[in-house]
Amino acid sequence: MKDKGIIIVYTGNGKGKTTAALGLILRTSGYNKKILLVQFIKNSFSGELKSLKKLKGVKVSQGGKGFVGILGDKLSLAEHRKTALETLEKLNKEIKSEKWDLIVADEILGALCGKLIKLQDVLKSLKNKQSLSLRDKSDNLDLVLTGRKAPKEIINLADLVTEMKEIKHPFKKGIFGKKGIDF
Amino acid sequence: MKDKGIIIVYTGNGKGKTTAALGLILRTSGYNKKILLVQFIKNSFSGELKSLKKLKGVKVSQGGKGFVGILGDKLSLAEHRKTALETLEKLNKEIKSEKWDLIVADEILGALCGKLIKLQDVLKSLKNKQSLSLRDKSDNLDLVLTGRKAPKEIINLADLVTEMKEIKHPFKKGIFGKKGIDF
Repeated sequence: MKDKGIIIVYTGNGKGKTTAALGLILRTSGYNKKILLVQFIKNSFSGELKSLKKLKGVKVSQGGKGFVGILGDKLSLAEHRKTALETLEKLNKEIKSEKWDLIVADEILGALCGKLIKLQDVLKSLKNKQSLSLRDKSDNLDLVLTGRKAPKEIINLADLVTEMKEIKHPFKKGIFGKKGIDF
Repeated sequence: MKDKGIIIVYTGNGKGKTTAALGLILRTSGYNKKILLVQFIKNSFSGELKSLKKLKGVKVSQGGKGFVGILGDKLSLAEHRKTALETLEKLNKEIKSEKWDLIVADEILGALCGKLIKLQDVLKSLKNKQSLSLRDKSDNLDLVLTGRKAPKEIINLADLVTEMKEIKHPFKKGIFGKKGIDF
């Protein structure tokens, strides 16, 4: 059976989506593969950024300018949109470059859900990835998308979809974001 | 608000449980913390083992002897049970040692679900962890449990629970386990 690149989606309202994508990066790096993490939305990632630098073959591309509308967000929606669109264009370029074994598009679904980018544009990226597989039978690029509320059109195109469902959340017990766990 | 150690459970029938735990290790390692990965069941982990060695402060303890009853499994159920119980005892010792900031008990719920260890024994480990927090207010140990079918008694004791729910699985399309993604 041929080892072929697949599209993976980590979605849902629970914690563990970006975290699982980081786990895939860790695992994949052990096989001397080339890995790219493209971040939509998030732009500060101290814990993992430091660790990722120690792993072989991992490049991080921070495209986001932080969460929209949260405390401290000084950008207009138009500026967030422009940034997200630039990040998506960069993602497309990297997908087509055939340089990578694993690309994680972190919070691309968050950008979609927050209306920073359009569904049609994301579907185009996925189709770019799929046309690679069709053209080049040795294509081994795995593409991972993370973020809440994956639309059914994206689930249809994906090969592996896991919904991270919140069963219990410590914020509700009054515990706030923890170093190492949440960021 | 004090930064306090919590109990995290990644459960469910979907992919991403161990992977998310690996992501937490990656993130936590970026803060120069001390991390222990205790593996119940699994005993071969080539991709991540190689990467984990590059991270600071991470120790791996392989307790398992492989999945029970799968092709190539030469051990009796009694032998698997003995090994799992020894791994659980080691886990308890490490929890009490107060040496670690993060302990991942990987597939402890798989060992439970496969009847290799007893619920009462796992609950005792969780209570050991919780009594640390009560006794020592600076206790910052995060304990992560992974595996399918977390029983409600464990969910009750945990602070953060995510169910990884399978929405779509590539095995069903005829794609088998992939290097870097599954192992």
